[in-house]
Order: sequence, then structure tokens, then C-alpha cells
Amino acid sequence: MSRLIRPAASQTHWDEEADVVVVGLGVAGASAALEAAAGGADTLVLERAGGGGGTSAMSGGVLYLGGGTRLQKACGFEDSAEEMFRYLMASSGPSPDEAKMRLYCEGSVELYDWLLGRGVPFKETHYFGVSGEPPTDDGLVFSGSERHHPFREIAAPAPRGHVPAKTHQAGPLLMQKLVLAVESGPARIANDHRATSLVQEPDGSVIGVVAAVFGEERAFRARRGVVLTTGGFIHNDAMLDAHAPLARACSVRVGADGDDGSGIQLGLAAGADVQHMDAVSISLPATQPWGLKRGILIDAQGQRFINEDTYYGRLGEWALLHRGGRAWLIVDDAVFESPTYPREVAAVGETAAELERELGLPAGSLEATLGLYNRHAERREDPVFHKLPESVTPLTTPPFGAFDCTVEGSIYAAFTLGGLCTDVDGRVLDPGGDPIPGLYGAGRATSGLSVGSYNSGISLGDGCFFGRRAGRAAASASG
Amino acid sequence: MSRLIRPAASQTHWDEEADVVVVGLGVAGASAALEAAAGGADTLVLERAGGGGGTSAMSGGVLYLGGGTRLQKACGFEDSAEEMFRYLMASSGPSPDEAKMRLYCEGSVELYDWLLGRGVPFKETHYFGVSGEPPTDDGLVFSGSERHHPFREIAAPAPRGHVPAKTHQAGPLLMQKLVLAVESGPARIANDHRATSLVQEPDGSVIGVVAAVFGEERAFRARRGVVLTTGGFIHNDAMLDAHAPLARACSVRVGADGDDGSGIQLGLAAGADVQHMDAVSISLPATQPWGLKRGILIDAQGQRFINEDTYYGRLGEWALLHRGGRAWLIVDDAVFESPTYPREVAAVGETAAELERELGLPAGSLEATLGLYNRHAERREDPVFHKLPESVTPLTTPPFGAFDCTVEGSIYAAFTLGGLCTDVDGRVLDPGGDPIPGLYGAGRATSGLSVGSYNSGISLGDGCFFGRRAGRAAASASG
Repeated sequence: MSRLIRPAASQTHWDEEADVVVVGLGVAGASAALEAAAGGADTLVLERAGGGGGTSAMSGGVLYLGGGTRLQKACGFEDSAEEMFRYLMASSGPSPDEAKMRLYCEGSVELYDWLLGRGVPFKETHYFGVSGEPPTDDGLVFSGSERHHPFREIAAPAPRGHVPAKTHQAGPLLMQKLVLAVESGPARIANDHRATSLVQEPDGSVIGVVAAVFGEERAFRARRGVVLTTGGFIHNDAMLDAHAPLARACSVRVGADGDDGSGIQLGLAAGADVQHMDAVSISLPATQPWGLKRGILIDAQGQRFINEDTYYGRLGEWALLHRGGRAWLIVDDAVFESPTYPREVAAVGETAAELERELGLPAGSLEATLGLYNRHAERREDPVFHKLPESVTPLTTPPFGAFDCTVEGSIYAAFTLGGLCTDVDGRVLDPGGDPIPGLYGAGRATSGLSVGSYNSGISLGDGCFFGRRAGRAAASASG
Repeated sequence: MSRLIRPAASQTHWDEEADVVVVGLGVAGASAALEAAAGGADTLVLERAGGGGGTSAMSGGVLYLGGGTRLQKACGFEDSAEEMFRYLMASSGPSPDEAKMRLYCEGSVELYDWLLGRGVPFKETHYFGVSGEPPTDDGLVFSGSERHHPFREIAAPAPRGHVPAKTHQAGPLLMQKLVLAVESGPARIANDHRATSLVQEPDGSVIGVVAAVFGEERAFRARRGVVLTTGGFIHNDAMLDAHAPLARACSVRVGADGDDGSGIQLGLAAGADVQHMDAVSISLPATQPWGLKRGILIDAQGQRFINEDTYYGRLGEWALLHRGGRAWLIVDDAVFESPTYPREVAAVGETAAELERELGLPAGSLEATLGLYNRHAERREDPVFHKLPESVTPLTTPPFGAFDCTVEGSIYAAFTLGGLCTDVDGRVLDPGGDPIPGLYGAGRATSGLSVGSYNSGISLGDGCFFGRRAGRAAASASG
């Protein structure tokens, strides 16, 4: 018998009952609880920590929204759901869920207004940089690769990072507002409750949750549905080994302690399917300040591998998954700046040949790469990786330096993207594509919009959007 | 209610009973059935096709065995379980299962003798080439990258591809012998039976299988256990999209029709965990005849990306997963040969510059790559990717040519490696790491020895080895 499943027949006692039991109080859980309660369901939230917020409250607070939100318009940017859809389908990894993506892009304007209605403040100003965590209180930011190759040729760029108005770390503010909204409504919140089992009927229906509370066990009957919003699995080494082993090497694991895959495991034990479990967001913040984009990133063969001006969420994925985490940012004296995120200078040399010797690269490899780069850079062109002219300049002024961008020696920030299969209303699906009655999910416990590459704000965004849909669906299910 | 699970209470009629029901009759199913029957269990095999064999019978028939088999010794090769273990741990993708690998390497000599005992013939001669499908009836072959960088520096190389004695396609012979062995024993075989559901108790125990037989439904009680040996999912587009989307682009899907993931789905619906579902074997047979290893493989940036002399199972993985399937094999007139697997000449040029223009590569990119390669090749060295001296020669004799090795234009042969989580005795595990009572699995329906990269013979090898263990474990389970 799985420890994760309790047969309904053996669960003779319930400590508490509700129509909808939401497991987890991050952005997806809060959104699900708000909508379930708004839909008239008696709603109970079980949160394993001492208070709500989860990983969402540790984040930069950016929500990826667009299609012409009030904020985009106020800042003078044009956008449409169609351009947003085209960009996200192209930039979110191979084979993202088209139906979810379509709904999300079409519902994004309304989602922004909903956040305003929940008391989340946004300042109607645009931050000039590109970031998932802008250092100002500006409300709008480019938080992806919209203006860079190959995406600028695919969809009209617009900034879509919507950031609650707080300098540094808007995530806590976002979650403070959303948790306050839950607390101010009819839903009940039970902190320090860690879900350990689902209660399941012989026909597969999920009818309740068992939770551990300070060593005691309590059982919660869910008359209409259980919504799993427990986060990803970046803190579960065994699950990383099983699905995304390279991510274990990352120095920064982005997630609250609860991101140990517990909800994904509960769903699997109940017969759910999972997808894209190998997908990971990996940020390599190597090109800040932005002038460092004028450097070139090279691998262990001294070869370039990406347009260095692309979003740092892409840089990490390429460096770790496709180049084994062997990377250095090469600069000359003219473009040298002290990096925003401190990193070692791995080598310095008066010539490219000296630098490549210092780095232990094959003789002539960096020379060949720099030679080709500089030849085109004379005309501010980069036909090899299509970096934009503003970041292309010949690297010819000695001394040359190499910043350590290896996975061992620098910041790689990772979290998982794969999880339970759900339909657009958060119904958890079995491998035959059928919903498991009574079981819903949203947020990083599920496979969402991004299935391999990353734009900042997607997880808060789809957690909120599909969390709301899951809450509504559970609330309207027959008891 | 999942269509894949039948509650035990609703299954009031059984058409047939057995101690052990094996689902599928490829190499894993045959091995499981033989050992279950040898263990005294009344054994029934359900095969969805009109006869046994499955994908195993469509394969090259190579089994990856070593550690000093009788065949290795007869051919004059030294090997040890330890060297085999070191090689496989290094060459089988990130984070392979160490416990399974250890047992497999230590049990490999016995497995070879067991195959002999089942009537599988091996000729005690060594084939000089490297291949998963040698064109002779020689019994022993290098079927991986044992002699190549970086593995030659990690473990003492030995040929470990053990091939039943038949010219071309030893797979049918292997399966003919194993199916004959099953038929000659006490186990019963029911062909044309496609398993559609597992029958499960409320406590999670699997007690039977429902199968479709020419449109009729039949129910089979399994008193001791069900063994899922149903193969991988290379023919299931939705599962590929969900787990390994890039594999969909491959022109050759290696698998019998039954490789649609049905057994993995049955296991998931019963509450099993899966792992490494993104792992795929991708062969790119671009360097045959072997003289073509003297060419260089380049990507869309005109850069090399691998030592071209490595096993073709590695070439495909690197080209597709890490270079987007954009690859060309560049040769000069001196090393030109007609390829074994016909492929288009994508471009010809009197100079590297002309060739790169023809291919649409960035100006100067191929020139830079060839310049660096030739500089070292003068001394038969390749410090960039460590191709062995025998395949390193300057490419300087015009005209130059580029063979099309793109995923759209050439042969990429793929099959899936991920699947159900099992322990070393084939017990299918739930996400908590506990066995699901009554459920076993082996072969490509499970995650086996290879979790990302591939050596030919691993799937037949681990299917046979862990199929036998699963059969024994199921036979000895209490009814």
C-alpha cells in the first residue's frame, strides 16, 4: 500500500470538512482559494509552513502579462494577445501546451485587472533594463528575450514583466496582498499542515487529504475537490536525479523549503500523469551590468554558443544543458566592467593566445573565435549568433579577461518546470487523458506554460491564472 | 474513473488465471516468462501482436555484455566487471542507476551463458568495426565509444557487443530462440491479446489484467504478479510531445507498433512513478564507412561539436539535442567516400569559403573551423574534441563537400529510454519508493541502465537481465 494514498474505506474519521481543500498557499494556492471561495465553496487552505507565501514570496514578483494591459498602455507600449502568443510559443521550450497558452494570452488583460482588484499595486512606469528583478519600483520591464534574436523576427516585442511597486523583491508584496485577500474572505487557512496522503475511493475519486500537524495526523474531507498547489521539486535530490540530473549542479536552488515535489508525488500515487519533468529554468546572470553583453561567452572548446544579449534565463539553459556548464565571458579592456553579481576573473592575458593558455583551452581556439567575431564586429554585425549591433564591438584592446561562468564557479539559479498533467481548468489528468475526479492542480506542481526555456514572470503568471481556473472548477464540481 | 484501472470489486469474472501474467513477448517478456516458469509459477504471456518478438526481433540483436564472458575470452579480449561498470556509468547519460548497473555488470558473464543455454548461438570471432548491426556473422563487436575520448581515459576498452550468429539482423534469431524456449516450457502464450487495464484492489495491489482480443474483452487473474514488458513509447506522439518533443523530428522510429507507451500508462494509472522520460537513444549513422570519420561534423554556426569518431549513437544525441539537428559532415576530396547510408551531398565548393556560402553558413565560420582543425591535424592531433590520430588528417584537397546530416535530410533513428521506476528485482515503485504489490516491469517500459546516452546492446541486455529478475521475483511472491 502506498503511504501516499489512504483508501476511503479506511478513513472513517474526518477532523474537518470543506467543499474545496487547497494544498499550499503560494500564488497558485492563494488564487485558487480566492476563486473557490468567490464561487461559493466552503474553502480550506492547508499550508505546510508557518504562514503563506511559499516560493512566490521569495521571487522577484514579476508576472508575465500582456496583450495590452492597462499598465502597458499607460507606459505607451502596444501589445496584442496574438503577438504575446507568438512570442511565448516560440520562446517557452519545445512543444508548449497551445490551449493553455492561448487562454493565458487572451486572459492576461483581465488577470492584471484582477490583481489590481486584490490590492496589488503597480506603478505605471517602465524600467529601461531587462530583468526578472528590476532594482527600481517601476511597474513594467522586459523580462525575456522579446527584442533579441530569433524572437524579434517572430513577434513584435513588448515589455510584459509586470512588477508590483516595491524596490527590490516585489514577491513578498505580491504575496502579502494575495494572502491578505484570502484572509479577508471566507476561506479558512490552516498553517503548519503538511499534506501526507490523499484519500481515494476505489473508483479513483479523491475525497480528502491527510496532513501532518506537529507530529499529529489530521484528516480533511473535500466534498468537491482537492487542489494541489505545492510547488516544484528543486529541493528533492532524488527527483532531480530521476528527471533533471544536471540541475543538481546549480549553486542556487530557487524555492521555498516546500519545493520538494510532495504534491507531484501525491498526484502520481493517485494515478496522475506527469510531463516535461526534465524542464528546468536556469538563470546565469553573467551579463550585468548590460555593457557586459559586449563580451562573448565561450565554452570549453573556446567556441561561442549563444547571442550574449539574450535573456539570462536562456544563457543558463544553454550553458548548462548544452555546454556542460563550461563557460567563460571574455571581455577586453574597453568593455570591462565589474559584474553586478560578483564572479571570479578566471584569467587575464595580453593576447587571446595568452588568455586561452591560462584557461586551458585548445591552442588557437579562442584566437579563431575572436578573429571571426572581430572581423564582423568591425561592421557591428554578428552573423553567427545575431547579437544586436548595440552590443557588438570588436574586442581588441588588451588586456583580455575571462569571467568565470562555469557551473562550479558562478551563480546558476534553478527551479523545476515539469509536473502533473492538467487540463485548462486545472483538472489533474491520468495517462489516458481522463480527469481524476476530485483532483485539481496549478502552479509549479503542474506542467504549465513554460516547458523548457524561461521568461521571468511566467510561473507567477500561470500559477495565478490557472490557480484561479482550478479554484473555480473545483468550486463548481458536484459534491 | 480511469479507463486504465479496473477496481477489483467490479471484476467479478475471470476468463483465465495464472500465478504470473507477463504482458508483452519481447526480450524482457520472454526472459521474465522463462524465469517465472522455471521458478515454478504457472505463467501466462499476453502478447498484443500475432506472435512474439516485438521490437527486439526488429533490432540488430546485439547484447551489451562483458566482464570477461566466454566469448570475450575466446576472442582474446580481457575485461572485468569493474571496467565495464566504469565505462557504462560514464557513458550512459547523467545519473544512471548505480545499483542496477553494478548487478548487471557482475551478472553479465552468467547472462551470456544463460543465453547459450537457451539455444542462442554466438560465433567466437571478433568483427573489426564498430557497430550495433555488424554486417558479418561475427559474435563480438565494439558497440559503443569504449576506445574513444573521453571514455578510453576512464576505463580499459573491451568489445562488449555480443551478436547472435547471423549475417544481418541477429534480432530475429535471438527472439526466435527465446520465444521457442518459452514455447518449449510450461508457460502459456496468448497472442493477439492487448492489455487495456490493470485490476487493482483498494489497497493498491494489482491482481489481474484485462485485455482486448479481437474486440472482445478478457480478464486474467494474476495470483502472484503482473509483469509489464510492453516496450517504450516512440510511436506515441502525445507522449513524445509530453516528454521528448525533439525526438518527433527523427526520420526513423525504432520500434514495433506496440511501442506506444501502453504499459507505462497502465503503470502510471496504478500509481507508479516514472523517471528519465526525456531520455532517448538517437543514432546518426553519418560516419560509415569508417573512413568518413576523417571528416568533421559542423553545426549551423560552422562549428564542430563532437569527436567525429565516437559511436554513432552519441553523434545523433549531440546533433539533435544540443545542436538543433543542424549538422553537416565536411570532407575534402582525399577523404571522400560514398556513405553506407545514402545521404545527400548538400554542397560542394573549391574552397571552404565557397562551401560555407553554399551551405548558408556565416561568412568565415567554416574557414575558421577548418583552419584550426587543419593546424592541429598536421600533427595528427585534435586538442579541441580529441578525435583519435587514426581519423585525423588535414582537410586541404579540393573540392570540399558537405554531406547533409540535418534531422530533416538524413537518418536519425530514435527510441525512448525512460519509463516506470523499478527496483533491481523489477518491482514497480510508487513515488514514495514503495513497491506496488503485484506489479513488476522490465525492458523499455521501465527506466533501465541507459538514461540519456546509448551503447548498442544495452536495451536487449537489460531487458533480458532485469526481465529474468522480475520473472523470478514475481514467481516467488506470495499469492
